[in-house]
Amino acid sequence: MTRILVTINLKNGVHDPQAEAVHHALQDMGFGNVTSMTMGKQMVLDINEDDHDKAIKQAEEMCRQLLANTVLERFEAQVLL
Amino acid sequence: MTRILVTINLKNGVHDPQAEAVHHALQDMGFGNVTSMTMGKQMVLDINEDDHDKAIKQAEEMCRQLLANTVLERFEAQVLL
Repeated sequence: MTRILVTINLKNGVHDPQAEAVHHALQDMGFGNVTSMTMGKQMVLDINEDDHDKAIKQAEEMCRQLLANTVLERFEAQVLL
Repeated sequence: MTRILVTINLKNGVHDPQAEAVHHALQDMGFGNVTSMTMGKQMVLDINEDDHDKAIKQAEEMCRQLLANTVLERFEAQVLL
């Protein structure tokens, strides 16, 4: 079994209104020293595959086919254990 | 400036229908060797504060007040740079 951490974030330059709204809310609440923020998703997948390289490749294929919107998002898969 | 990574996940035992739906979809698409998956959020905050400990404490306070739903979610803040 290999545990994979997948992180999915918007590509650079893609407008993120959700992060902007949260950033504004933080400012309004007194956290004025937050100069920028980005938001993303993470998933932890347990894959029944002992070969780490194969597990990473499978996770990347899952990202391309389902987990990420590759037009707007970039993804990264790394071994946790 | 300190860059903080905040990760927010559901507490253990909290039912996650979104992760369940994605897990089922992966199975249907032929990724039958995924035995479990969890989904969470991550945020990267640039905080105008050079003291790492203070920056972490501020990020944790933001989680408690806004970013996380502490009834259902647990959060973790760590220094990225």
